[in-house]
Amino acid sequence: MADHGDRVDVEQHRADVAELLAPLADRPQEVVPLHQDVLGRVLARDVTAPGALPRFRNSQMDGFAVRAADVAPAAPGVPVTLPVAGDVAAAPGEPAPLEPGTAVRIMTGAPLPAGADAVVPVEDTDHLTFNGSADTSGGGTVAVVRPRTAGEYVREPGSDVAAGDVVLRAGTVLAPHHVAAAAACGITRLPVLVPVSVAVVSTGSELVPPDGEPGPGQVWDANGPALEAAVRAAGGRVGLRVSVPDDPEVVRVALERAAALCDLVLTTGGVSQGAYEVVKDALPEVTFRSVAMQPGGPQGLGQVGGRPVLAFPGNPVSAQVSFVVFLRDLLRRAGGLPPVDRVTAVLDGAVASPPGRRQLLRGRWVRDDAVAGTPRVAVVGGPGSHLVASMAAADVLIDVPAATTTLEPGAEVAVWPL
Amino acid sequence: MADHGDRVDVEQHRADVAELLAPLADRPQEVVPLHQDVLGRVLARDVTAPGALPRFRNSQMDGFAVRAADVAPAAPGVPVTLPVAGDVAAAPGEPAPLEPGTAVRIMTGAPLPAGADAVVPVEDTDHLTFNGSADTSGGGTVAVVRPRTAGEYVREPGSDVAAGDVVLRAGTVLAPHHVAAAAACGITRLPVLVPVSVAVVSTGSELVPPDGEPGPGQVWDANGPALEAAVRAAGGRVGLRVSVPDDPEVVRVALERAAALCDLVLTTGGVSQGAYEVVKDALPEVTFRSVAMQPGGPQGLGQVGGRPVLAFPGNPVSAQVSFVVFLRDLLRRAGGLPPVDRVTAVLDGAVASPPGRRQLLRGRWVRDDAVAGTPRVAVVGGPGSHLVASMAAADVLIDVPAATTTLEPGAEVAVWPL
Repeated sequence: MADHGDRVDVEQHRADVAELLAPLADRPQEVVPLHQDVLGRVLARDVTAPGALPRFRNSQMDGFAVRAADVAPAAPGVPVTLPVAGDVAAAPGEPAPLEPGTAVRIMTGAPLPAGADAVVPVEDTDHLTFNGSADTSGGGTVAVVRPRTAGEYVREPGSDVAAGDVVLRAGTVLAPHHVAAAAACGITRLPVLVPVSVAVVSTGSELVPPDGEPGPGQVWDANGPALEAAVRAAGGRVGLRVSVPDDPEVVRVALERAAALCDLVLTTGGVSQGAYEVVKDALPEVTFRSVAMQPGGPQGLGQVGGRPVLAFPGNPVSAQVSFVVFLRDLLRRAGGLPPVDRVTAVLDGAVASPPGRRQLLRGRWVRDDAVAGTPRVAVVGGPGSHLVASMAAADVLIDVPAATTTLEPGAEVAVWPL
Repeated sequence: MADHGDRVDVEQHRADVAELLAPLADRPQEVVPLHQDVLGRVLARDVTAPGALPRFRNSQMDGFAVRAADVAPAAPGVPVTLPVAGDVAAAPGEPAPLEPGTAVRIMTGAPLPAGADAVVPVEDTDHLTFNGSADTSGGGTVAVVRPRTAGEYVREPGSDVAAGDVVLRAGTVLAPHHVAAAAACGITRLPVLVPVSVAVVSTGSELVPPDGEPGPGQVWDANGPALEAAVRAAGGRVGLRVSVPDDPEVVRVALERAAALCDLVLTTGGVSQGAYEVVKDALPEVTFRSVAMQPGGPQGLGQVGGRPVLAFPGNPVSAQVSFVVFLRDLLRRAGGLPPVDRVTAVLDGAVASPPGRRQLLRGRWVRDDAVAGTPRVAVVGGPGSHLVASMAAADVLIDVPAATTTLEPGAEVAVWPL
């Protein structure tokens, strides 16, 4: 391809797309039951505890609930012996109050009887262990060999969280331990951000659907399934996925419908310099430009029906690279997710690159456990933008700056994880 | 808690659990349609291309399909002028053969006419660009200013992948670019590993379900929802989730049913030294031990109904920590997923730790963009295993070795991401 002087720099196009999509970051909220899959969803606002946790005073140990004053004189060799009135297990109900001068066996998490203010661990008594010996009737005695002050081994109500305290912060990406905290507080529903809804519109008269049988000149639509997967992987939702022929009227109708249904419209195909560029024809109000990058040079951005639209090239490799470079992080950020960090890696071989265009080469990690430090990458497949099957062997995109024409083995490069 | 001499080392228990769960790694396969959510699923076997890609010879450029021999004499200032017979777009159908001594306009991806063996990019002609000017009738001419050898800018069938070539390797964790490759090859179903199916059995008479209203002595079941989330996050499936009271008969029946339904049984509660340890009572054939770790010391492992069973303590923090330390990576590995790497971090404050037990403290990342290199962590909340709400503020578990009693600010520690 000859070099045109009017190419737009990759970072300029990234900035323009970011400006176009900025309104998407103003997400609406929805409430999701905790028993649905909330993992990876993003909390829309702070969530507070409806009540205190622990809910009631309870024992931190298997041991004996006592009045601290009763065991104050205890010491090794000089035990305090108390009658045992019975057991308190972690079970429903209010235990009977503790009579002064007595003890009850108490299990971890069981409610402290009224009147008790400390727990003596079973190891600090002549029982040593309970070992599964249930005894609800009482009648025995316990010799306490160590004093305990009031409050020892007692979990006070609200010592984990008080009613009204923030348990989960807005912006939290929900993980299992957040589910644990919510469930422990009796929270059954969580307010989360509504994912960005994206319409994926593949254009091209040559396309047949995934389950179709292509005839001469026809190919399967790879961009529809692949961009749907890419949108989902970036935390978005696909609100519409269609494939339309190269007819500007049909494309226009499809894009207006897509804009009415979704937050963002994504098209593939019909944006290049050929004679049949249907997206260009259907969207005269959109800016089409050549970005100084390979693959993925031809790009469009603008609005249709008041919604942002991004037009990617139709080649599946170009479309995937366009998604990673221009949309993935913006979609993640709009939905409250952190961006995918670019990583510094060391090249495992030499790379030649044409001048004036940023190359995004498909690369794979080279595992070498013997060498610590910077990870290594090697180029896979060729630079051809039609090598979509070869792209399956890639782990990353290797980012070769526009001004670079050769990179020696061992050179440091930035890579985008796929 | 007093120190018992018979505690088992954490690594020993990890090894014993790994041995117990080794048979889980022998996963069955299932076939999933590509249009379902295959992201993150693990390919069960190599997938080969049912046909060649590209399916047919096509143009790599917008330009003119020619016979290379016809344009061989072309040079700047000495163009070869050919009559243009018409257009070939990327569309269904077989183009007419190319007459010797003529050219056709051809678009990227369009099938090459029989007889043509090279493509001259439009920039190397007097047309410079097609600019959306469809012209199916022909009648004009093209002046070619640069010769092209046979095969230039022609994508040969099978140049991406040949029929029968491996497109996706067994063990691949499916990402959008794998979906792109499969869809481009017309593959509509993928063989993936069946996730490990786990039964989550919470025990405790004090538990009420998430939507229940706890009375005196009762608490919400946090472990059921939280371990379900943890299993899912590790690529597993929850085949059964129940909460059962502290009745050994009821627990035994529930565990046998769980073993009949699932690959692995996970219990919480009833494994400690108290008087009402229902899981111990229900599973006399299981090994219960005290692991030298805090929280999460009391652990059980063995079999019920021919299935592996792991018994975690009932406290929600202990249960979550047990999952991360003993089960998460094994579950991921059994399902074909990579383990979650432990990370080296630098402590932001001092830490005191009792001797003889490995501590897993809840910690959070301390962001300091000014300092590159090793990430920093700070302890959050207290060591109390009942602090489940406080755990929501944690990002990691800080791993303090059993022999360590104090760590100064700046000390290096291993952390487990949550």
